[in-house]
Amino acid sequence: MNILLLEPTELNAEGRGVISGPRADHIRTVLALGPGDELRAGLIDGPLGQVTVESLDDHGVVLRCDSLLATGTRPPVCRVDLLLALPRPKVLGRLWSQLSCLGVRRVMLCNAARVERYYFDSHVLEPSTVRKRLLDGLSQAGDTRVPQVDVHRSFKKLVEDDLGRARSGEVRLLTDVTAAGPAPPIRKALEDLPGDARVLLAVGPEGGWVDFERALLQEHGFVRVSLGERTLRSDLACIVALSLVHETLREAGR
Amino acid sequence: MNILLLEPTELNAEGRGVISGPRADHIRTVLALGPGDELRAGLIDGPLGQVTVESLDDHGVVLRCDSLLATGTRPPVCRVDLLLALPRPKVLGRLWSQLSCLGVRRVMLCNAARVERYYFDSHVLEPSTVRKRLLDGLSQAGDTRVPQVDVHRSFKKLVEDDLGRARSGEVRLLTDVTAAGPAPPIRKALEDLPGDARVLLAVGPEGGWVDFERALLQEHGFVRVSLGERTLRSDLACIVALSLVHETLREAGR
Repeated sequence: MNILLLEPTELNAEGRGVISGPRADHIRTVLALGPGDELRAGLIDGPLGQVTVESLDDHGVVLRCDSLLATGTRPPVCRVDLLLALPRPKVLGRLWSQLSCLGVRRVMLCNAARVERYYFDSHVLEPSTVRKRLLDGLSQAGDTRVPQVDVHRSFKKLVEDDLGRARSGEVRLLTDVTAAGPAPPIRKALEDLPGDARVLLAVGPEGGWVDFERALLQEHGFVRVSLGERTLRSDLACIVALSLVHETLREAGR
Repeated sequence: MNILLLEPTELNAEGRGVISGPRADHIRTVLALGPGDELRAGLIDGPLGQVTVESLDDHGVVLRCDSLLATGTRPPVCRVDLLLALPRPKVLGRLWSQLSCLGVRRVMLCNAARVERYYFDSHVLEPSTVRKRLLDGLSQAGDTRVPQVDVHRSFKKLVEDDLGRARSGEVRLLTDVTAAGPAPPIRKALEDLPGDARVLLAVGPEGGWVDFERALLQEHGFVRVSLGERTLRSDLACIVALSLVHETLREAGR
């Protein structure tokens, strides 16, 4: 836990945060803080800053949050969205915190020919599970903005109706390990991007997209990119592709 | 399983591979291959190529490997070594296959001030467990070269005696999320690298290196690099840093 994340509902009318459970235990036992000590904190989907321990006991911790509320700054909005063919539950379960730790604005999970139906019934898609794991990653990364997550049972509807054509300043990338023929690296595909560009990154299922899916994505502005010659499992492909996109945006000063 | 990996001991005198267990089951049930069918395979620490199913039943699969042995090609040696402060067993357990999937020549696991003693007693350091998981990653990536793994109880001895000074053409990088002050991105630190360069990448423990460790690494030629402003857990830092190193080497055509 690099920052303590507070739900807005945990603030009382006087701007005090009252927490219990694992975060309070962490403050007491791992950080070993006492009254008057400061720690880095963030209000979920709000500002980042410092809070001060006012009092603490076995039941919980009371934090003074006036400075956080008055002078905290909001972290920047992430410029990267992810379209991900729904991975196996075990894989997705581990991926949530890694995605929010790396930084992503929105995660669209979608069906694909090589996605098994039962993946959609997993508890790792339950909103409370998803949110808890996303918060873990944000707390690690020092961010407060919870990625938006939506699940799409129809790949075709998602791409044709919801995504439609790329907007100006939006770059759509398709990492496709099984696609024949050479594709440029991510850096090349992001050259000459406008300063306010957004990136939408599509990562396929284990076994890759089928031809129909690949063609539909390409018709809707997705450009194939290569992650190298090694075939990565889809969770690793997500992490690697996100790293490379972020690094390229960072270097370009965006 | 993108390639079938065979132990040299699984080849008989006539160049036939005889396998049973999960790999044989995979060939029968997932790939649904029959006699005469070919599949992509590799001999561990040897060539990559094609093998042919000769016969199969519930007990196992017999493969003709003469073409693999005669015309298979050895994958290139990876140019990246990793020095990693021993992570928590649960984290390390997941990391093995990701490391070998991304590609690393050698993994040096070491002690550090913020590594807990009990991490060294975990079964995820047992050679048979390590090898099995490394092979999983290689089989996914399509590589045959098993990374060398060694465990070092003394950080100081490893750095001072074993690593010593950087050799010509070796670049040493230190990802250190907690270090004060700006550090260049990995790409910048790898500029103007000779064609046969090697990279040794050091990734610290949860909570980072302590000052002594950081200073000792820097004295021995490690250059600080930044992975951005978000604080990544050490396994994610490994994956991100390896991705960026590989991408930079790949782009430079090395």
